[in-house]
Amino acid sequence: MIELEHPTAHGRSRASSALPREIVVVGSVALDNVETPFGRVENALGGSATYFATAASFYAPVKLVGVVGDDFPPEHVDFLRQRRVDLAGLEVIQGGRTFRWSGRYEYDLNTAHTLDTQLNVFAEFSPKLPATYRQPGLLFLANIAPELQRAVLEQIERPELVALDTMNFWISSRRDALAEVMRCVDVVLINEAEARQFADTYSLLGAARTILELGPKAVIIKKGEYGASMFTDGEHPGETYFFAPAYPLETVKDPTGAGDTFAGGFLGALAREPVLDTAAFRRAIVHGSVMASFTVEDFSVNRLRALTPDEIGRRFAEFQAFTQF
Amino acid sequence: MIELEHPTAHGRSRASSALPREIVVVGSVALDNVETPFGRVENALGGSATYFATAASFYAPVKLVGVVGDDFPPEHVDFLRQRRVDLAGLEVIQGGRTFRWSGRYEYDLNTAHTLDTQLNVFAEFSPKLPATYRQPGLLFLANIAPELQRAVLEQIERPELVALDTMNFWISSRRDALAEVMRCVDVVLINEAEARQFADTYSLLGAARTILELGPKAVIIKKGEYGASMFTDGEHPGETYFFAPAYPLETVKDPTGAGDTFAGGFLGALAREPVLDTAAFRRAIVHGSVMASFTVEDFSVNRLRALTPDEIGRRFAEFQAFTQF
Repeated sequence: MIELEHPTAHGRSRASSALPREIVVVGSVALDNVETPFGRVENALGGSATYFATAASFYAPVKLVGVVGDDFPPEHVDFLRQRRVDLAGLEVIQGGRTFRWSGRYEYDLNTAHTLDTQLNVFAEFSPKLPATYRQPGLLFLANIAPELQRAVLEQIERPELVALDTMNFWISSRRDALAEVMRCVDVVLINEAEARQFADTYSLLGAARTILELGPKAVIIKKGEYGASMFTDGEHPGETYFFAPAYPLETVKDPTGAGDTFAGGFLGALAREPVLDTAAFRRAIVHGSVMASFTVEDFSVNRLRALTPDEIGRRFAEFQAFTQF
Repeated sequence: MIELEHPTAHGRSRASSALPREIVVVGSVALDNVETPFGRVENALGGSATYFATAASFYAPVKLVGVVGDDFPPEHVDFLRQRRVDLAGLEVIQGGRTFRWSGRYEYDLNTAHTLDTQLNVFAEFSPKLPATYRQPGLLFLANIAPELQRAVLEQIERPELVALDTMNFWISSRRDALAEVMRCVDVVLINEAEARQFADTYSLLGAARTILELGPKAVIIKKGEYGASMFTDGEHPGETYFFAPAYPLETVKDPTGAGDTFAGGFLGALAREPVLDTAAFRRAIVHGSVMASFTVEDFSVNRLRALTPDEIGRRFAEFQAFTQF
């Protein structure tokens, strides 16, 4: 476990590790049909691991674990390779079909209306980590069944930091298993409705405390257009609470993947931090907000295709300006 | 009009004015019945001018314009006098009944469910400013009919800064009159649903631009538990956008008056600023958030009765800590 207050308290010596750390992500790779008031796409590159890996690849080497069918378009593989994402852990099932999701958003882009879900090869997903993946610096367990998240932890040497995401489906159907895996991670990323659902309270502070009591050092609650809050252990809100606003965009074209690219920017930025203390977490949350803000400017990962480090740096500076007083 | 970028461009010389500036507020004084999951109160001190004046009185001299019936309890008058609020402008209608509002909140405390509204003497409210009120430094036009807001502006020498609040009822029924009075003020405070309604767009940035085009130098969009955003003129978001989060409270007992005490903290803090520039506005928004956060910790203005300047200062410092990275 990382120690937010005492950042050196970890078995592996940081001094001997070269930055940036390697990141492993386990999650879905999908083909999405998405419709919003601003347009639509079909068979677009999607999935939690895809969004995460694309965003994180701007910061650090990323190794992806996932599964697709043999219908998965080669241009999507090419794109991820161009982003230098290691695909040794991407299983291709011959004769299988890739996970497909169809959704629609209204003007209120906060809620996805699922039109169709075809799990296909993802229904039988059983993450198998290649030998080269087994000593990552950072691990992201994207939104998959908590039992699979647990199974991944059993295949690797304990990374310096493990973060997980989840969703309402697992909270409803596998709450105990989810709580078990939360006990084993350092950071829980969760959206606000899910946090309230998990803790059965309206109070986000109360929900965060419920999760912190399980063991994680930090809970990051994602609020979509309202930004993100981080809660860490302690008594005084001034030390244990951090808030980053969302970027004020005139138009959000497609919110799909915002949460996963947030996680990608967050872990990506942490991969470059010498010390994983609270200050590093705060900067990383802002990088998460930066990457999510770019992602929602276009469908799929399209806005990230031409994104430059300069643009990331400029937007990070804008976030600083937004909150200074 | 104040010039956010060029703070000296105003007829009245700031150097000759002693701080803090005097504030005049025009709005409702009411008796509220409020029920939330955390309790209930009857005939509690309420009304937009009351909440505003109580909060602003921690920072500056406040002069209140409003109307009550002869049923208005003397202890409420005593409380406002203790807070050194000038009540020369509080009209008492003999034989009249005070404005009464009854409302209920569910666990989701963002929405007030109005159970009963009795305008009583407030239905015929026609603000008359005493001679001693006619040269205020700052003016707050709380949520009343836009025609009345306009009538107030005609009774006074132009203050250094005028801010207004409004509500969905006036946007639906008197949009043109409201737009007219917006043209005459420096700051519009409005909640997010109302901003979207006024501008007929989901985009808050778009809504803010619509209002800025009418003339105000700043639009402050209140988002309840999600904090507040300020938009000012200009091209670059880093210079023209500011965001303050809400205070992370475990329990919100009663959100009534949060918006008006936000405005009270905001104008109160501005009353103490030598120069009304963007930096002063930012600090003032945080003071607004501080005062709103205390208000919602108890029913009516009860939390403010025993509030101390030290508590305000400590919470302001916590807000700084929440957003630093």
